Amino acid sequence: MLVIRRHLHMHPEVSFQETNTAKYIQDFYANLGIEFTANVGGNGVVARVIGALPGKTVALRADFDALPIQDEKEVSYKSTVPGVMHACGHDGHTATLLVLGKTLHQMREQLAGEYVLIHQHAEEYAPGGAQPMIEAGCLEGVDAIFGTHLWSLTPAGTIEYRVGPVMAAADRFEITIQGRGGHGASPHQTKDAIVIGAQLVTNLQQIVSRRVSPVESAVLSVGSFVAENAFNVIADSAKLIGTVRTFNPEIRDLVEKEMERVIQGTCHSNDCTYEFLYERGYNAVINHANETHFLKELAELVPGVTEVRETEQHMGGEDFGYYLEKVPGTFFFTGAQPKGEVFPHHHPKFDFDENAMLIAAKTLGAAVVDYQDK
Amino acid sequence: MLVIRRHLHMHPEVSFQETNTAKYIQDFYANLGIEFTANVGGNGVVARVIGALPGKTVALRADFDALPIQDEKEVSYKSTVPGVMHACGHDGHTATLLVLGKTLHQMREQLAGEYVLIHQHAEEYAPGGAQPMIEAGCLEGVDAIFGTHLWSLTPAGTIEYRVGPVMAAADRFEITIQGRGGHGASPHQTKDAIVIGAQLVTNLQQIVSRRVSPVESAVLSVGSFVAENAFNVIADSAKLIGTVRTFNPEIRDLVEKEMERVIQGTCHSNDCTYEFLYERGYNAVINHANETHFLKELAELVPGVTEVRETEQHMGGEDFGYYLEKVPGTFFFTGAQPKGEVFPHHHPKFDFDENAMLIAAKTLGAAVVDYQDK
Amino acid sequence: MLVIRRHLHMHPEVSFQETNTAKYIQDFYANLGIEFTANVGGNGVVARVIGALPGKTVALRADFDALPIQDEKEVSYKSTVPGVMHACGHDGHTATLLVLGKTLHQMREQLAGEYVLIHQHAEEYAPGGAQPMIEAGCLEGVDAIFGTHLWSLTPAGTIEYRVGPVMAAADRFEITIQGRGGHGASPHQTKDAIVIGAQLVTNLQQIVSRRVSPVESAVLSVGSFVAENAFNVIADSAKLIGTVRTFNPEIRDLVEKEMERVIQGTCHSNDCTYEFLYERGYNAVINHANETHFLKELAELVPGVTEVRETEQHMGGEDFGYYLEKVPGTFFFTGAQPKGEVFPHHHPKFDFDENAMLIAAKTLGAAVVDYQDK
Amino acid sequence: MLVIRRHLHMHPEVSFQETNTAKYIQDFYANLGIEFTANVGGNGVVARVIGALPGKTVALRADFDALPIQDEKEVSYKSTVPGVMHACGHDGHTATLLVLGKTLHQMREQLAGEYVLIHQHAEEYAPGGAQPMIEAGCLEGVDAIFGTHLWSLTPAGTIEYRVGPVMAAADRFEITIQGRGGHGASPHQTKDAIVIGAQLVTNLQQIVSRRVSPVESAVLSVGSFVAENAFNVIADSAKLIGTVRTFNPEIRDLVEKEMERVIQGTCHSNDCTYEFLYERGYNAVINHANETHFLKELAELVPGVTEVRETEQHMGGEDFGYYLEKVPGTFFFTGAQPKGEVFPHHHPKFDFDENAMLIAAKTLGAAVVDYQDK
Repeated sequence: MLVIRRHLHMHPEVSFQETNTAKYIQDFYANLGIEFTANVGGNGVVARVIGALPGKTVALRADFDALPIQDEKEVSYKSTVPGVMHACGHDGHTATLLVLGKTLHQMREQLAGEYVLIHQHAEEYAPGGAQPMIEAGCLEGVDAIFGTHLWSLTPAGTIEYRVGPVMAAADRFEITIQGRGGHGASPHQTKDAIVIGAQLVTNLQQIVSRRVSPVESAVLSVGSFVAENAFNVIADSAKLIGTVRTFNPEIRDLVEKEMERVIQGTCHSNDCTYEFLYERGYNAVINHANETHFLKELAELVPGVTEVRETEQHMGGEDFGYYLEKVPGTFFFTGAQPKGEVFPHHHPKFDFDENAMLIAAKTLGAAVVDYQDK
Repeated sequence: MLVIRRHLHMHPEVSFQETNTAKYIQDFYANLGIEFTANVGGNGVVARVIGALPGKTVALRADFDALPIQDEKEVSYKSTVPGVMHACGHDGHTATLLVLGKTLHQMREQLAGEYVLIHQHAEEYAPGGAQPMIEAGCLEGVDAIFGTHLWSLTPAGTIEYRVGPVMAAADRFEITIQGRGGHGASPHQTKDAIVIGAQLVTNLQQIVSRRVSPVESAVLSVGSFVAENAFNVIADSAKLIGTVRTFNPEIRDLVEKEMERVIQGTCHSNDCTYEFLYERGYNAVINHANETHFLKELAELVPGVTEVRETEQHMGGEDFGYYLEKVPGTFFFTGAQPKGEVFPHHHPKFDFDENAMLIAAKTLGAAVVDYQDK
Repeated sequence: MLVIRRHLHMHPEVSFQETNTAKYIQDFYANLGIEFTANVGGNGVVARVIGALPGKTVALRADFDALPIQDEKEVSYKSTVPGVMHACGHDGHTATLLVLGKTLHQMREQLAGEYVLIHQHAEEYAPGGAQPMIEAGCLEGVDAIFGTHLWSLTPAGTIEYRVGPVMAAADRFEITIQGRGGHGASPHQTKDAIVIGAQLVTNLQQIVSRRVSPVESAVLSVGSFVAENAFNVIADSAKLIGTVRTFNPEIRDLVEKEMERVIQGTCHSNDCTYEFLYERGYNAVINHANETHFLKELAELVPGVTEVRETEQHMGGEDFGYYLEKVPGTFFFTGAQPKGEVFPHHHPKFDFDENAMLIAAKTLGAAVVDYQDK
Repeated sequence: MLVIRRHLHMHPEVSFQETNTAKYIQDFYANLGIEFTANVGGNGVVARVIGALPGKTVALRADFDALPIQDEKEVSYKSTVPGVMHACGHDGHTATLLVLGKTLHQMREQLAGEYVLIHQHAEEYAPGGAQPMIEAGCLEGVDAIFGTHLWSLTPAGTIEYRVGPVMAAADRFEITIQGRGGHGASPHQTKDAIVIGAQLVTNLQQIVSRRVSPVESAVLSVGSFVAENAFNVIADSAKLIGTVRTFNPEIRDLVEKEMERVIQGTCHSNDCTYEFLYERGYNAVINHANETHFLKELAELVPGVTEVRETEQHMGGEDFGYYLEKVPGTFFFTGAQPKGEVFPHHHPKFDFDENAMLIAAKTLGAAVVDYQDK
């Protein structure tokens, strides 16, 4: 597992361009005589282990793309590709699933059911690989799906689960306010795009404070506000760019709709026009209650697992949610905090405790095998 | 003049109810054999002195209504009517014009032209007496009009003139925001009228700061904001009442129009409804340049006048402007600051220096007589 | 149970004045020979049933105060006291606990442990009865506590539980902005309390939208904004009254602290002064995980219970939280939706399905008895 | 005059680098034997014509710098310097004054008093040439000063005067809000500089609407708002740049002071820091009443002048005001609207009616000569 992970770590490929990594996975399965399909919805690879006995079909998913980040760690397995790095642990996910697949293959005579091993490309970059792989049929006949994320901020030995929304829908918006520019000394001949934009930023705050139920979560952040001009002019236009995060799809719809309403009203007040672009990122990851409770209870029995606890909701995005919209399942976190200094995911010095891969593999393995009896 | 003023001061009558005062004026003219018309556009009285020689027809105007204020002065001529008081000096205006009328009558053989003495009721209370008196014909044949206001805050002996807008148009508005009330813990089920109203108050500021030319004047003040509820509810509605002051009729139209736009937009942003009532008070008083310069130069020669200066614009209202929309003329201030403590107009202890009446009479008299030669 | 409930319903007493109700409870226990203490922390009554076998000491709590609301139901057991009514179901809570106490007393020879029956006065009116009863010692020696609320909006047969915060801390605030009044036409001579208050209402929105974690809950509502004046003045002062709701004590502290900061800054911006009063209401009710899971599993076995489900968090207040700060326990909801039209708690026509009392009694009884084995 | 103007137009030099132009002026006076001082406070040139008779010392000022604008006119006298152009008419001012100086020199035997001809460099670029020239003594012994601006938007033949403030003080400010950046999904860990900046832009509006007297003028425009970031972050800082325009020095002080107050309060509300830089540009040009009335009456008699009228106040800047702070005088506009299409000052196609130079010279000449008798 270590060898595989380190090989992948040294040869990272960014989203949608991970052809060598896909080839590596294919070769691995080919060498073992495990049946697989390549180029599923892009660079995706789906392998299949069929137990000798009848049973359920259970899927496992690991993503395998890397990030456009320069590796700044000083380790023997440092990335050999300038500006590209496995800074999120997908190399570990892949190594975990490959070795688990091999093990299941070896045990296939004793196993009931079927095991679908989904190696997904392009998790880091919307629109992502999950949707095209699902459209290409990777979930056909699947009864349940499990996935995990190695997590560098959680101690190794800890498994974190959560029923319901666990990772947020992450959307992006752009608002362009088109006023009318002019001389800074003559506001009455203009429609001051900065004043209008300021009003809009303030008004948008009220969506979260007044229109979203206090027991629901929503974030609306304007990350960028640009109206760059000389000091003595009045701005012709202003561009606001930002993000919306929600868990509940109804709240997501509500926020988008209310944004349009607030923008419309604010621009009407100021007799100006606007463009509003709302781009939906990944849907929220919403874990199913039964599979999550099942995983939680099972994890407590996995050797090496020292703590099983509920995780806080994460406002980050992940396209695992698309699988969960089709079949029951759960997405959990496997603690992988390294010795020494700890860096968050996507950091140029990110690394994780490689021992956590074994815990992940055991937990996932126990999940899919035990699920036969559920 | 003193006797007349003190009599009127002791027997004040509020706007539109000043029948005894009108009778007093009528009797005064009747006793002198001066021709007059009663009940002009209400309680108004218009007398007419006709000079022996041909000439222009020049009007003078004095208002004669009092205010619903309790007189708190301790003087012999204190108001005898509880809760009613000449707190703005209209008693002085009337005494001045009556005595001036008498003087003109006595001089009529030497005089050219005609002198129209307009005693106007109801200046203090919109829609005022000026408009109905004009509609009733009091300006027919008039070539020019002059009027003055005794001013307790300006030293006696001072005459203050100004070309162009000198007193503001004073309008009143009411805005009712109709949101949807609810429990203070459930904002998402409501449309919070206080939050909407607050946004509106803030947005309305931008009319003055951004939409009115910086070399024009406008005031928009919300004087009353009421949404009274228990602490743990969300307000169903909010009522905002206020005033708009402008000099330029175009700016007045602009402010009203922009208010409607801002209210519409703010309510659209919040998906609520509103009622907007904009009641125009008196138009601005806009002095004509020629008559004002004429008055200014003439005033410098009037005995007793020690200073002639330009006045600041006053944001208060006055219905003299309606006369100036029909005929040329000017409205000026006659300093009447009393000895001792000085109180502003409409104060329960308001009084003025009675000597100023003579200066007012001389200046007005000089104006109408000299205007024959202009 | 029905007879007791209806008697209490006909004779309601408001918070802190419920002396007859306390007497009724005392008489009930006295007649049965059950040991009790009267006047515990006020009108509170604490009875004690001691099982024959050694075991844990478990408490049950029922509140018994009514509300200053006129009963508008047409039923035989309608309130006989004008303007006072059991509009929240505390009569039912009391009947439930009395009958349960009697049953435990009858079974005492077979029972292990001790049963503390806490009849609490004054739940409806802060600072409430829970704190003084605790200070008076009602929880001494207690190992765990259970309580329920009959709930008219949830179908009878349903038990609703929740781990962690289940009812909110409900605080009250008053903000007085002291500006400087003046004439509506002269804003520059004033400090416009309405403009300042509007700015403040808007700024306060940002506490929820920007300073509270999106996975935490907080509500800040200004329920009342009053600055009532004539249309042509500028407001001298404005009074804002409202409520803050939170579950997490750290968020509660944060909101109060940030409010002070925002008020300070807004008033500094406007060179005015303020008074800020923040009155803490009841703490949040935070259920213990073990006792809640215990209750949940047990409830599924109680005859008459048809559904056990997680409840949403309620933003309303309840002083049961103070007990839970001292000893483990849980507070759950017993569905009591009546036939016919349903009215919410505190409504003049509020009523509940009296059969729910039996379910409540059985669930509470099972909880305290089974807790011996936990 | 035409020849001089066209020569200068073809050889423009930007502010503070106008050495060849200064040399041209020096040569002109040297050739005529007119006494002058070079390098007065920089590139300034001051010539002096002394009349044969005793009298007052009266100054005239013409500026001679050009602008960094590419000349886009198609005329024979088009600028020969790429990217530099006389787009404001200073070439005309200089030609006017040189020829007027020559004329006064020729008439010197008949003239009383002294004539100080101030050729000022660097009017277009703060801190300007007026102040160093004054410090270098150019106003020593001067009793009064006159200056004019050729104005392309006013018909030739028109002279525009105004008592009091005629051109605004034009200041520049920079505000940097230093918040704390972070991830767009975690506002509670940040201090959102865009939200703070938006609040500030809105709050700053209230300085004009509420703190400046409605009969005074002030403009506060934020021309640039820049906080440029990725969509999913929260802004660390925001930079606001803008201008303030006022006529009354007290209002200028007030606006600066109130800005500091509003920034302080807004940053206090948000627990962030700021930098505030307020750079004063030129003071307002405030004409003296006597010299303005003198000029106005005199202008009505100048051959070629067809209309003399009051000008609106201009919100643009001009450093002539510094002279007027030392000695009485007036700055007026000489209509110079060209035939055909008209372009505003500072436009790449700007030009003016060269006949206006003669009217300017005659009016200025009449002013300084007649002033001897005043």
